[in-house]
Amino acid sequence: MKNKVLKVGFLGGVGEIGKNMTFVEYANDIIIIDCGLTFPSQEMPGVDLVIPDVSYLVSNKQKIRGLFLTHGHEDHIGAVPYFLRDLGVPINVYGTKMTLALLETRIKEFGVSNYRLNQVKPRDEINAGVFRVEFINVNHSISGSCALSITTPVGVIVHSGDFKIDLTPINDRLMDITRLSEIGKRGCLLLMCESTNVERAGYTMSESVVGTTLERLFSENLKRRLIIATFSSNVQRLQQIINISAKFRRKVALLGRSLVKVVDVAAKIGELSVPKNVLIDVDKIKNYPDKEIVVISTGSQGEPMSALTRMAGDDNSQISIGENDTIIISASPIPGNERSIYQVINNLYKKGAEVVYDSIEKIHVSGHACQEELKILHSILKPKFFIPVHGEYRHLKKHAKLAAEMGLKDHQMIIAEIGDTVLVTPKTIKKGDRIPAGSRFVDGYNIDDSTSATVRDRRRLAEEGLIVVLLTVSAESGEILQRPDVIARGVTLGDEQMEDVKEIIEKVVCSFDLKSQGDLGEVKKKIRSSVRNYLNKRSKNNPMILPLITEL
Amino acid sequence: MKNKVLKVGFLGGVGEIGKNMTFVEYANDIIIIDCGLTFPSQEMPGVDLVIPDVSYLVSNKQKIRGLFLTHGHEDHIGAVPYFLRDLGVPINVYGTKMTLALLETRIKEFGVSNYRLNQVKPRDEINAGVFRVEFINVNHSISGSCALSITTPVGVIVHSGDFKIDLTPINDRLMDITRLSEIGKRGCLLLMCESTNVERAGYTMSESVVGTTLERLFSENLKRRLIIATFSSNVQRLQQIINISAKFRRKVALLGRSLVKVVDVAAKIGELSVPKNVLIDVDKIKNYPDKEIVVISTGSQGEPMSALTRMAGDDNSQISIGENDTIIISASPIPGNERSIYQVINNLYKKGAEVVYDSIEKIHVSGHACQEELKILHSILKPKFFIPVHGEYRHLKKHAKLAAEMGLKDHQMIIAEIGDTVLVTPKTIKKGDRIPAGSRFVDGYNIDDSTSATVRDRRRLAEEGLIVVLLTVSAESGEILQRPDVIARGVTLGDEQMEDVKEIIEKVVCSFDLKSQGDLGEVKKKIRSSVRNYLNKRSKNNPMILPLITEL
Repeated sequence: MKNKVLKVGFLGGVGEIGKNMTFVEYANDIIIIDCGLTFPSQEMPGVDLVIPDVSYLVSNKQKIRGLFLTHGHEDHIGAVPYFLRDLGVPINVYGTKMTLALLETRIKEFGVSNYRLNQVKPRDEINAGVFRVEFINVNHSISGSCALSITTPVGVIVHSGDFKIDLTPINDRLMDITRLSEIGKRGCLLLMCESTNVERAGYTMSESVVGTTLERLFSENLKRRLIIATFSSNVQRLQQIINISAKFRRKVALLGRSLVKVVDVAAKIGELSVPKNVLIDVDKIKNYPDKEIVVISTGSQGEPMSALTRMAGDDNSQISIGENDTIIISASPIPGNERSIYQVINNLYKKGAEVVYDSIEKIHVSGHACQEELKILHSILKPKFFIPVHGEYRHLKKHAKLAAEMGLKDHQMIIAEIGDTVLVTPKTIKKGDRIPAGSRFVDGYNIDDSTSATVRDRRRLAEEGLIVVLLTVSAESGEILQRPDVIARGVTLGDEQMEDVKEIIEKVVCSFDLKSQGDLGEVKKKIRSSVRNYLNKRSKNNPMILPLITEL
Repeated sequence: MKNKVLKVGFLGGVGEIGKNMTFVEYANDIIIIDCGLTFPSQEMPGVDLVIPDVSYLVSNKQKIRGLFLTHGHEDHIGAVPYFLRDLGVPINVYGTKMTLALLETRIKEFGVSNYRLNQVKPRDEINAGVFRVEFINVNHSISGSCALSITTPVGVIVHSGDFKIDLTPINDRLMDITRLSEIGKRGCLLLMCESTNVERAGYTMSESVVGTTLERLFSENLKRRLIIATFSSNVQRLQQIINISAKFRRKVALLGRSLVKVVDVAAKIGELSVPKNVLIDVDKIKNYPDKEIVVISTGSQGEPMSALTRMAGDDNSQISIGENDTIIISASPIPGNERSIYQVINNLYKKGAEVVYDSIEKIHVSGHACQEELKILHSILKPKFFIPVHGEYRHLKKHAKLAAEMGLKDHQMIIAEIGDTVLVTPKTIKKGDRIPAGSRFVDGYNIDDSTSATVRDRRRLAEEGLIVVLLTVSAESGEILQRPDVIARGVTLGDEQMEDVKEIIEKVVCSFDLKSQGDLGEVKKKIRSSVRNYLNKRSKNNPMILPLITEL
């Protein structure tokens, strides 16, 4: 008889494994964990979203027994509509109330219907083919976050999801360490654990710490209008802001589409409790004195079109910032966003406002476990095998080191990358075949699989600019019918240079016998190289050169 | 008789005042403090450098009595060659040995000669018109850094330059607190003080702390090759690395053009002491076992073309990274560089190397004063007036708050921006007229004053791509002579969309009577808007559309 082998596969957009999408396969069954998207870095101009390549799953669609969502953040649920569209066949989707509520608003915008949503509570167990999946409550920066314990024919897998251990959470739901300890006691074959904060020593502070700072800031700003920017999906943060506002007898207005949506959804399903007569519409705030107003706003990352960025500029915002405003940015910059958010802060200061942000106050806590919390999970699960997930490569390396300190040997761990599969038997863990997992770019509403060339073009255009050379020749005689036109965009040519370039082009064209030249490719190539040589000497510029020849 | 009025003006590239270039004017005399450049942010694709607009100084060139350089970093000396070229007349330049040595290599590459370099030592005093300028030693991340004390007819101005207070510096040159205290005792009219680290509590650690960490890392990696990336201008850091390498009997190879240049210059003028037989050429390292080698490399910021980035990629580097390498990145990411440097770290890990960096070891210290050091300077100078400089707006605001805690009142402080002048009398400080101070962009070797439109174009091209529409019409009849050509770059059009776009164009052209249409501008406008409408509906794409019409 063949050995029992479990296959774990990592799909995803850019960079981090085990975050966007993971699957577990055994013989004729596959279950999927999460299906998220990534927001692109600045090296991908014009790309709106990056989603996982799901072709492996699509070609094995008959095996799929369900999609299990750990929590409702975009990087874990955002690609579900695209996945459903590609999959074409119906699929069962499992998640907690909050996760499914957020997912539903996304899917509706998209117009696909091949799914059935199955709401679960922590400790619920779902049979899916040969697998049994249990949801286990964890703490994180969004409510309804769960780890998954997956019983397979080979052994038990635990996937941590995104988590931290918050012993004083706002919603009173402690991480279910008891249940995880039981699983550890009975034997955990494989742990996949997130690695985001593995470089940070100690423990992540509790969400309630933020409340303490906020209360003090409210007390210190009794006469001023307060504007608080935060992540719209952080319902516990919103709950604290609303509670403290009510306590200080202030009205709360919401600014930003995603924020309004989340508050609406969360209030409906009871994840957020909003006292009566606290929420007001943004256009009503002018009816109240500053000291009775709190505005909660999106844009804590300095996103160009967000409410906060608009307020900081003069961009037809509904709120005009002045000297009686204190803006509290209850968030940390995500790496890569530093410049944007500091620009917003500078602009708010220039308008005379006070600004309170993470560098100067304890006004934000992370949603991810630091080193000591990770060690707790390792120590109670005592897994036989370990795959660090959810982090850049450096984080995975660091997490493997931490696991080694907890007693694991090298042969018990795999550092995987997107597109890797990992094969697990009761006694071994090793890498399997690679599967297709390149990023797919979403530009507007289109999925664009030719985008890597497109992105390369855009980057080039951005770095160096563009010169279009326009030439009309007679198909009959091969003569130039008109002086070449030269159009420069993103690069400056003086009159003299313009003339030089035209002359160069004319010389090139004359050097060919266009009549006998079947293909104009060679002519274009020569135009490009000649113009490039000329520009290089003059200015070190290297724009994209686009020769267009019309034959008449 | 008119009141005595001193004018202080702030020129600069982007963002931070009092960093790139400052001038002090009184009646017929002007002196200039620093003349640096800024490296552009990612919002300025294709721009290599940003330099100050010096037109105010050029139009007042007959008043200029000298250029005083506080230290040799690019953001304080890098624009000198461009300034000299624009100025046209000879000028005296003053700086310490290290500063001038670095400046000279820059000017030589440029081929201007209208300058005289005057080497100074700390405590030297120079008469320049009505001014007397004294150089005062400070600590910073480059040797030969000075503050300036400027005696004027109105009172004494102190400009801190970039500084920190290092009580155990590697070169044994303590900051001259004694001299600054004397100046404070006699009366300081105006302090301009840098603000970089004003958000950080406490003190900046001494440079020698890095040496302690390095020694431990050398001890822990006795059998491995060491590669240390750092800022090439940090001569004290280089000195420590060289000393420890010699102690551990390792050879040192230098990788990176700027590094070789700085070591050469610093060794020549005695700022760096290199023991015999320690330095070897990079292509000689293969003659030694790994454990006898230290490579010092540029690229600590993940710069695309730097030595470290090439090593991390497979980009024809002279050094191939393997499992016996430990890479030490002795630097912190400058805001905006995080993604690049972490990408390099991930790639190094993937090659099997160990990587030690700032998030996990005390392997770098800042060159700038933290809050307590700033307070020391304020307390010994007790200035009558204060202008916080060298920082984003948020830093200047924070520094003004710190000064207020030290006893200054609002009317004693000015927060200025680039292009502002500040007027100081013995009794008052206020803002004066604005002067031209827009950034000037250097693209390749050209200064490009039309660059803001160019940069806008490039950004658009990068975000949205480009569609060129090529049309040939008969000048006589106004008929279309050929089907329109449509070329897409940085945006993808399917065959069907391509056809649609061509049809749209044909329809637009037919709707005009081209024969009687003198100007084709209207036609082009209509083509643009029609194609844009079509694309918007389909894909939310908004590429630049460039209609080109040839009349024959």
